[in-house]
Amino acid sequence: MQDAGQYLEKMQTTAPLVQNITNYVAMNIMANVMLAAGASPAMVHAREEAAEFAGIASALSVNIGTLDPDWVAAMEAAAAVMNDAGKPWVLDPVAVFATGLRRDAGARLVALKPSVVRGNASEILALAGAEAAGQGADAGDSVASAEIAARALAGQTGGVVAVTGAVDYITDGSTAYRVENGDAMMPRITALGCSLTGIVAAFTVGQPTLEATTAALAYYGLAGEQAAQRSQGPGTLAAHLLDALYGMTPKALTVGARISAA
Amino acid sequence: MQDAGQYLEKMQTTAPLVQNITNYVAMNIMANVMLAAGASPAMVHAREEAAEFAGIASALSVNIGTLDPDWVAAMEAAAAVMNDAGKPWVLDPVAVFATGLRRDAGARLVALKPSVVRGNASEILALAGAEAAGQGADAGDSVASAEIAARALAGQTGGVVAVTGAVDYITDGSTAYRVENGDAMMPRITALGCSLTGIVAAFTVGQPTLEATTAALAYYGLAGEQAAQRSQGPGTLAAHLLDALYGMTPKALTVGARISAA
Amino acid sequence: MQDAGQYLEKMQTTAPLVQNITNYVAMNIMANVMLAAGASPAMVHAREEAAEFAGIASALSVNIGTLDPDWVAAMEAAAAVMNDAGKPWVLDPVAVFATGLRRDAGARLVALKPSVVRGNASEILALAGAEAAGQGADAGDSVASAEIAARALAGQTGGVVAVTGAVDYITDGSTAYRVENGDAMMPRITALGCSLTGIVAAFTVGQPTLEATTAALAYYGLAGEQAAQRSQGPGTLAAHLLDALYGMTPKALTVGARISAA
Repeated sequence: MQDAGQYLEKMQTTAPLVQNITNYVAMNIMANVMLAAGASPAMVHAREEAAEFAGIASALSVNIGTLDPDWVAAMEAAAAVMNDAGKPWVLDPVAVFATGLRRDAGARLVALKPSVVRGNASEILALAGAEAAGQGADAGDSVASAEIAARALAGQTGGVVAVTGAVDYITDGSTAYRVENGDAMMPRITALGCSLTGIVAAFTVGQPTLEATTAALAYYGLAGEQAAQRSQGPGTLAAHLLDALYGMTPKALTVGARISAA
Repeated sequence: MQDAGQYLEKMQTTAPLVQNITNYVAMNIMANVMLAAGASPAMVHAREEAAEFAGIASALSVNIGTLDPDWVAAMEAAAAVMNDAGKPWVLDPVAVFATGLRRDAGARLVALKPSVVRGNASEILALAGAEAAGQGADAGDSVASAEIAARALAGQTGGVVAVTGAVDYITDGSTAYRVENGDAMMPRITALGCSLTGIVAAFTVGQPTLEATTAALAYYGLAGEQAAQRSQGPGTLAAHLLDALYGMTPKALTVGARISAA
Repeated sequence: MQDAGQYLEKMQTTAPLVQNITNYVAMNIMANVMLAAGASPAMVHAREEAAEFAGIASALSVNIGTLDPDWVAAMEAAAAVMNDAGKPWVLDPVAVFATGLRRDAGARLVALKPSVVRGNASEILALAGAEAAGQGADAGDSVASAEIAARALAGQTGGVVAVTGAVDYITDGSTAYRVENGDAMMPRITALGCSLTGIVAAFTVGQPTLEATTAALAYYGLAGEQAAQRSQGPGTLAAHLLDALYGMTPKALTVGARISAA
C-alpha cells in the first residue's frame, strides 16, 4: 500500500455507477459525497426496480439504517444480481445490535456474502455473533476489541471487513491494514459512515478489494483532516469535506495516507 | 430561569439517546442539529422496531410532517412505551391544520398526552380546536394569538406546550415563559422547527420539563443569532448554525438567553 | 424575454404554496432552494392526503427519482386535481430510461399533460420515445440532440418542455429559447435539477408558462454562477447557491440572464 492514490485515480477514471439502497438520513449527503469523489451514485430501492437496476450498476451498497421488511427484500434481490454477475457489493450494518429486525436483516445479508462489510466496532462485533455495547447508531466498543470478530466475519463471507473508528482496521481474514487518517469531529456529522460505504463500493470496482477498501478509507479520512483545518464546527466541516473530496489529487492521497500493515 | 446554561450542561453530560420518528425532509438536518448539540439521535420509524427501540431510548420525538398511516401506528406504539416507562416524548404537529390525515393523527397523538407539544401558532391553534390560518407548513397566525390555545392544550395533555415564532411562548397551563432569541432568517431554512423539537426532547431527559423546554428554545435561538452574524443567506446560515450549536458553552447561553416570565 | 427579472419579482410577490411529490434525496435541498427563492414549498406525498392537499396548493411538482407504485398513484391523483382546477404542474422524469417502473410511470404522467416537463437530454429523449444513452441519473446525450424530441413531447402534452444541460433549451413546440446561465460544477451537487423543477413550478403560477420557465432557468443558473465565484468545491457551492438565490434582485436577474431565441 505504498501508492494509495492509484486507487483513487482508477476510480475516478472509471466513474462507476453505484446503486445505493440506503437509509433516509444518508441519501442526500451520501450522493453528494460520491459525486464530489467522482463516482456516479443512484439511489434506487423499490422492490419493483431494485434488481433490474442492479443489472446496469457496477457496484451496490446496502445500508440497514432506516429499515423495513420491503427494503430488506429489495436489498436481497439486488445483492443476488451482483453476486450472479460477479460485481462487488458492500454492506453497512447500521445499529445491527439494536433490534430484532436489524439482527435478522444483518444475518440474511451476511449470508449473501458481501464483498465488503463496513461498520463500527459494535456493529462488527454484533454481526460476528459477539456481545456489543453500541448505543443507538454509535459504537460503544473500541476498534481493537473488534479485530478478532472482523477476521472471523471475513472468514464467514469470504470478503473484506472494515472496522472504522479512530484508527480503522481492514482485513480479508488473513492480511490486514490500519488507517490512521480522519478527524475527531467527523462523528458529529450524521451519516458520514454511511457515505463512506458508498465510496468503498466505488473504489472496489475493477480493483483488488482489500487494497481498494483501505485506500478508500485513507482518502476519506485525509479529506476530513483537510476539511477540519478550515472549519469551526460540524456545519462548516460538512461543506469543506465535500470540497476536499472533490479537490484531492491521487498524488496528495499517496503522500497523506497513513496506512500500515496490521 | 436565571441560569439557562445549566440545562445545556446537564443535557451534554447525559448525551441522551433520542429516538426520532420524523419526516423525510427533516431527518438529516435534525440528526445534524442534535449531534452538534451533543445528543445522540436515532431515526427509527418502522412499525416492526419502533416500539422495541423506544425501550432503549431516553426520549422520543414524533413529527407528522410526511405522514402515512403506518407511521402513525409506529408513533403511537413508541409513545405508549415512553408513557409506560415514564420517559418524555415530544410531539411536532407539522401542518396539522392542512388535511384530514393530519388532523386525525394530531388528535390521536394528543390523546396520548405528550410531555411537550412544539409547534407554530397555527399548529397549536388547530390542535386545540381553534381556527387556524396556516398555509402549507407555515404559520398564518401570531404567537400571541395562540397563547390561550396553548394553555388549553397544556391542560388537556398535562404537559408543556411551546409555541415558536418571533417570540416563543412556553407554558404548562399555569406558569409561562417567553423566549426572544432567534433570527428572522431561520424560517428560510427548511425543518429548523422540526430539528428544534429534537433538541427539546434531549433537554427534557432528567430535567423539569417547562424549564428544560424554555432553555432549549433559548439555546437554539441564540445559536441562530450567532450564526446570522457570520452568514450572507440561508445556505451559510445553516452551516454556521450547526457550528454555533456545537460551540456554545453553558455560560454563553446563560448570558445570552433572553427569557422572561409571561 | 428582455426582462427576466419581472418573473422573479412576480413569483416572490405571490410566494406560491407549491406541493412537491419528490424523491427522498431531493426533499431537503429542494425545500431549501424554494425557501431561499421566496416560494412556500410543502412536501406532501401520501395517497391519503396528496389530492386533498393539491386543492390548497397553487402549483405541483412531481418527480420519479425514488419511486414506488403508491407514490405514482398519489402523483396521478394530485395532478388530476391541478388539471381540474387549471393550476400548473411540472413533471421531473428522473432516470425515466432506466427501468420498467420508471418508463411506465413516465408514460402515465405524460398522458396527464403536465404544464412543464423539466429533464436532462436523455430523459426527454426517452419520454418522447427515442433512444437515450443516460447512465443512472445522468444524461448521456447532449441538449442539442434532444431538441426535436422536446418539440415532439411539447406537441404531445400541449405544454412546455425544458431540456437542461450546459445550455438549456425550452420550447412549447413552436417558440423556443436557450439559456446559457449556469456553472459546470452544479451537476456535482445531487438533486439540483430536482430542486430547479420546484423553482419552475413556483414561477409558472399566474405567469405565461414558456417565459416563466425560461426566466426560472436563468435565475437558477445565474445564482449558480455567482455562487461558484465564492466556492472551492461542491460543498461550499451548495451553501453559496442558497445564499445567491436568496440575495438575487429582479434587476440583477434581468442584467445577468443570458437568454436567446432558438
